[in-house]
Amino acid sequence: MKFDRKPVSVEEAQKRVLSCVSKLQVEYVPLEQAWGRRLGEDIEADHPVPHFPRSGMDGYAVRASDTAGATAASKVELDVLETIACGQFPTQPVGEGQASRIMTGACLPDGADAVIMLEQTDRRDSGPAVAGDKVGVKKAMYPGENVTPVGMEISLAETVLRKGERILSGDIAILATFGKAVVPVFRRPKVAVVSTGTELLQVQEPVQPGKIRNSNSHMIAALVREAGGEPILFPPLPDYPATAIAGMEDALRQADMMITTGGVSVGDYDILTAWFAEWPHAADVGQHQRAVLFNKVAMRPGSPTTAAISDGKLLVALSGNPGACYVGFKLFAEPAMLAMQGVKAALPRSYQATLDTAFPKPSPFPRYVRAASRMEEGRIRVLPTGPDKSSMLSTIKDATGLIIIPAGGSGAAEGQLVEYIDFTMQR
Amino acid sequence: MKFDRKPVSVEEAQKRVLSCVSKLQVEYVPLEQAWGRRLGEDIEADHPVPHFPRSGMDGYAVRASDTAGATAASKVELDVLETIACGQFPTQPVGEGQASRIMTGACLPDGADAVIMLEQTDRRDSGPAVAGDKVGVKKAMYPGENVTPVGMEISLAETVLRKGERILSGDIAILATFGKAVVPVFRRPKVAVVSTGTELLQVQEPVQPGKIRNSNSHMIAALVREAGGEPILFPPLPDYPATAIAGMEDALRQADMMITTGGVSVGDYDILTAWFAEWPHAADVGQHQRAVLFNKVAMRPGSPTTAAISDGKLLVALSGNPGACYVGFKLFAEPAMLAMQGVKAALPRSYQATLDTAFPKPSPFPRYVRAASRMEEGRIRVLPTGPDKSSMLSTIKDATGLIIIPAGGSGAAEGQLVEYIDFTMQR
Repeated sequence: MKFDRKPVSVEEAQKRVLSCVSKLQVEYVPLEQAWGRRLGEDIEADHPVPHFPRSGMDGYAVRASDTAGATAASKVELDVLETIACGQFPTQPVGEGQASRIMTGACLPDGADAVIMLEQTDRRDSGPAVAGDKVGVKKAMYPGENVTPVGMEISLAETVLRKGERILSGDIAILATFGKAVVPVFRRPKVAVVSTGTELLQVQEPVQPGKIRNSNSHMIAALVREAGGEPILFPPLPDYPATAIAGMEDALRQADMMITTGGVSVGDYDILTAWFAEWPHAADVGQHQRAVLFNKVAMRPGSPTTAAISDGKLLVALSGNPGACYVGFKLFAEPAMLAMQGVKAALPRSYQATLDTAFPKPSPFPRYVRAASRMEEGRIRVLPTGPDKSSMLSTIKDATGLIIIPAGGSGAAEGQLVEYIDFTMQR
Repeated sequence: MKFDRKPVSVEEAQKRVLSCVSKLQVEYVPLEQAWGRRLGEDIEADHPVPHFPRSGMDGYAVRASDTAGATAASKVELDVLETIACGQFPTQPVGEGQASRIMTGACLPDGADAVIMLEQTDRRDSGPAVAGDKVGVKKAMYPGENVTPVGMEISLAETVLRKGERILSGDIAILATFGKAVVPVFRRPKVAVVSTGTELLQVQEPVQPGKIRNSNSHMIAALVREAGGEPILFPPLPDYPATAIAGMEDALRQADMMITTGGVSVGDYDILTAWFAEWPHAADVGQHQRAVLFNKVAMRPGSPTTAAISDGKLLVALSGNPGACYVGFKLFAEPAMLAMQGVKAALPRSYQATLDTAFPKPSPFPRYVRAASRMEEGRIRVLPTGPDKSSMLSTIKDATGLIIIPAGGSGAAEGQLVEYIDFTMQR
């Protein structure tokens, strides 16, 4: 089997992964802790906005009909009833020939249907108004002028936020407005993160000849956090089958999903390949307790990327090369995690952008090249973040997306439109 | 003073704010807690990458000179010394006529200068190699072929990450590679968040006539988190000067910086205006214990936005209208918070984009219109997220940036290039 893997397309691999995950439970958290979570239910407006007729000006609440014909030269004089500040409720209706002083954002009194600006009256500088004062109005008003009617911004029971949306600052404002002191959110997926390889040292260890520090586990843990999950970080496993497999079985038991790095290739010490050797293969999990969904993807880097399912838990086995590991996470693990948090369109989003340099490298498989974008005169230009060697760490740090170079041919030319996956686009 | 405020430009206001803040202390956190923080020091490579000559193939480590003239028809036969797995150190140098089996990523033995792919030898399917085996090489190799020399990716002491950078997944991989189990980061700014207004209800309270729930505090707290700070949320303060001012003085004492919302306009109950009435005005703090940096900005929305400094602490007083509050935070408070966390270019980043609709609204001041972008055939098109009323909550949630419409004239035409501040661009 080692040398006979059948590649599936990236799209088919994504479809298989997404067919095997389901939404996690909804839990309730205080509004202060809801930031960054995924909404567990649609949110409806518990009141219209505004929920009272609201003054849009600092001035006087009047009856428009009383102001007919008013000009600076021929003022209409009205009797002042009271002053209505924000947060106060008017105590008296405005009758014919009457007016009330009102602030921006305050509630319009019954009877009034317009608010005239302070500057269009003769009381601009005369201090707070009290009952018994008179106000001279210098302009004819039309009904509704400077008043926001009930429900103009948002209707009662309107859906204001959707299940699966990521809760960011603007959503927090809406949740607060509609009284959600406690917010329904999808549980964060617990993701076991396991690196394999006898060559791996822990971060605090000094480097040794032939050995490297384990960076993949820490990078994946950070990516898990960025995707809304809770990483459970395990120490790296050595390339001894019995130890490594026992370690992975144990890690999987503690999590909703597992991501491994390394050991998926065809070397003599590739542990994941050994573990999956006896598992059946299936395009979806069906009746299997365990199954390999695919063990090769038609892509560069990361073609040995493997996914499997065990007791309903997804297992994504990424390549040990940091670049391939990163690309595999973004294309397969992250969409799965988003779907578990209720996101409907969980796949990465792409659009067309102008390639800023030639990429003269043919490949039998499509290439997913780590890239950054820059803007110039309204156009999006994308540029690989460095030499496309999958071991190059710095090309990950600077990447904000992936350029897709189609298979075959001779790569892509400078100035050509290419498909670009933009990681900054919110799903 | 109330009606005589002198507007400063957005750029001048930003300059004044940034001139008054300084970097916070550097503290040390475990790598697992470094995600999202700002790096407190430049990070240098503590070893070259790779730090040993690394095999790029699964195959045999050979001396290129031994393989001269080798072809499939005329193989060169070499004596196998040992198998070198990843993480193992070679035990023997490769002498003339010798070779060692080697895995991808393993350390090249002394004497060898090239790695021939397993597929280009006659031992592809013969299982692990041991001392005494022979291997037939079918191709002439050149010195250095399939070997990554020491330091090819990163040199010793090279600066790999810069002070002030936000630590995301790619940076985590680099910190792990260079042994940073403990990471220097800038302390998070503690930001007091205070809303003012007698009309404000707490989120858990039922709505009442004339009153609205306090959404600004919660939105600002979330924005503070997004900018890397720690919000300290205070209950809303009523519009009674003595109570409100005592509350604000107390909040400021507990934080590095304070953000207020509401009370900055010219209404009869505008508390912030009352508080600042006696403070001196200054373009920078100079010798003042307290000073107002500006109390009007030439912009829409949010022209009454005010900034002040008290005992070295920045105070940003935002408008109570949610939209104006949001824009003011992004233009003034967020850059200040980033500068406190060591970010050198702390101002929002903008570029030109195509306006997707007409915006026929003239204004004496530049307008900062909440907007979202979409991509079409390599072009960035930007569209306001809704009617530009500063009270419209949903236009905040959907915004990924701000369109800048210059002052005067007649607004902007559909298809015109406009300046666009993109919040998704990393600083």
